[in-house]
Amino acid sequence: MKRIICLLVLIVNASISRAQVGLRHYPDSLFSTYYHQRVSHFKTFPQTKGDIVFIGNSITDGGEWSELFNDLKIKNRGISGDVSAGVLNRIDEVAQRKPAKVFLLIGVNDLARNITADSVVKNILLIASYLKQQTPSTQLFVQSILPVNDAFGKFSGHTNKGQQIKQVNEKLRQQANNYSYTFIDLHTSFSDENGKLQKDLTDDGLHMLGKGYLLWKHLLYPHVFGLQQQTSLLPQPQKL
Amino acid sequence: MKRIICLLVLIVNASISRAQVGLRHYPDSLFSTYYHQRVSHFKTFPQTKGDIVFIGNSITDGGEWSELFNDLKIKNRGISGDVSAGVLNRIDEVAQRKPAKVFLLIGVNDLARNITADSVVKNILLIASYLKQQTPSTQLFVQSILPVNDAFGKFSGHTNKGQQIKQVNEKLRQQANNYSYTFIDLHTSFSDENGKLQKDLTDDGLHMLGKGYLLWKHLLYPHVFGLQQQTSLLPQPQKL
Repeated sequence: MKRIICLLVLIVNASISRAQVGLRHYPDSLFSTYYHQRVSHFKTFPQTKGDIVFIGNSITDGGEWSELFNDLKIKNRGISGDVSAGVLNRIDEVAQRKPAKVFLLIGVNDLARNITADSVVKNILLIASYLKQQTPSTQLFVQSILPVNDAFGKFSGHTNKGQQIKQVNEKLRQQANNYSYTFIDLHTSFSDENGKLQKDLTDDGLHMLGKGYLLWKHLLYPHVFGLQQQTSLLPQPQKL
Repeated sequence: MKRIICLLVLIVNASISRAQVGLRHYPDSLFSTYYHQRVSHFKTFPQTKGDIVFIGNSITDGGEWSELFNDLKIKNRGISGDVSAGVLNRIDEVAQRKPAKVFLLIGVNDLARNITADSVVKNILLIASYLKQQTPSTQLFVQSILPVNDAFGKFSGHTNKGQQIKQVNEKLRQQANNYSYTFIDLHTSFSDENGKLQKDLTDDGLHMLGKGYLLWKHLLYPHVFGLQQQTSLLPQPQKL
């Protein structure tokens, strides 16, 4: 009986919390079967300390992040095809873990559906607010949307959104201080001289080849491991 | 110059080895852009000792295996949409790592393309032969193809192949001793009383929900960690 009361209190509290930052529950039918497979998979994992969560769409999903950084604390919460509303709808699963860090990259699938840059930014700021409220000790890193390239003749609805991607990124940069997150500009490093995704990092103008993930790792490394890790690599004082 | 000669020797040796077991290189255009993204990603990872490799199609790809088993040695080599020829074409990447164990699950996408059960088995036996030849110390576990269920009205080309799946599985079981692998029957445990994928493990009749991955973990656990791990859990003799 005690357990049932506790559960009810938790559910009511979660509902109030979501309402406080303007989150709403979306109907299940809005998301793909793959979305539900992944979310139900994530929910089976026990809570662990010091998690570093990578959350996003197919570009995050396709990365073997714990292998790339050689660290089991890194958890892949990417879902191919996901949009900002999809992340909003499942951010509870991440917040409840009270992770040490969250790396978010979302929005290009929204733009491909002709959702406006402002709407994408609004949803990302809601995600930031919710995490801040639910797990204030978690460091949030909002990554810029990556550039795209239409030269491959694939994903045309995505790769013609170069300008909108830049608009989202600029707004995300501007709001970083207001919403207490660190903005990480990946766009500049992944772009060629025309602001398009460098051709040798991709084979479809949207997703990453191995070389793209290596560049990404290089850019994220200081944020993932931070100063603490670097300090621990310094020579330790010898025992007297 | 020495390095170039060494490289040439390696390439020639690899070609001879592939030819010895009847492997051939397929044209890149045969596989998806996602296939190439994943393979190029896998190739960037350094060789590590004692790897436990999970290789297969979307059902393997969708699993967070290292998190599920809480072990960084477990590497995800799943590629959504992959077929037995796709695994043959990329098995080099796995063999070169000389992993401790390989868990293979492939074939349902072949059957969906109306490739025969015999052809699927032939390719899987080629994979087994190649691994045996290239990395004899690696333990290979060939998993049965999982059952499917047509009640969800999705993936109809896959979910109408229940009988062919059973044929593949029976042949794989029969060849285990001849090809020095351990056959793991997942099919029985995932099936309902009619031999179809249990409805509560899936939302599309083909792919797994979180509960499906938990059952899978339960069935694989003794094979993944083996007797050595179990032994290490026994009380250690006290120091005198």
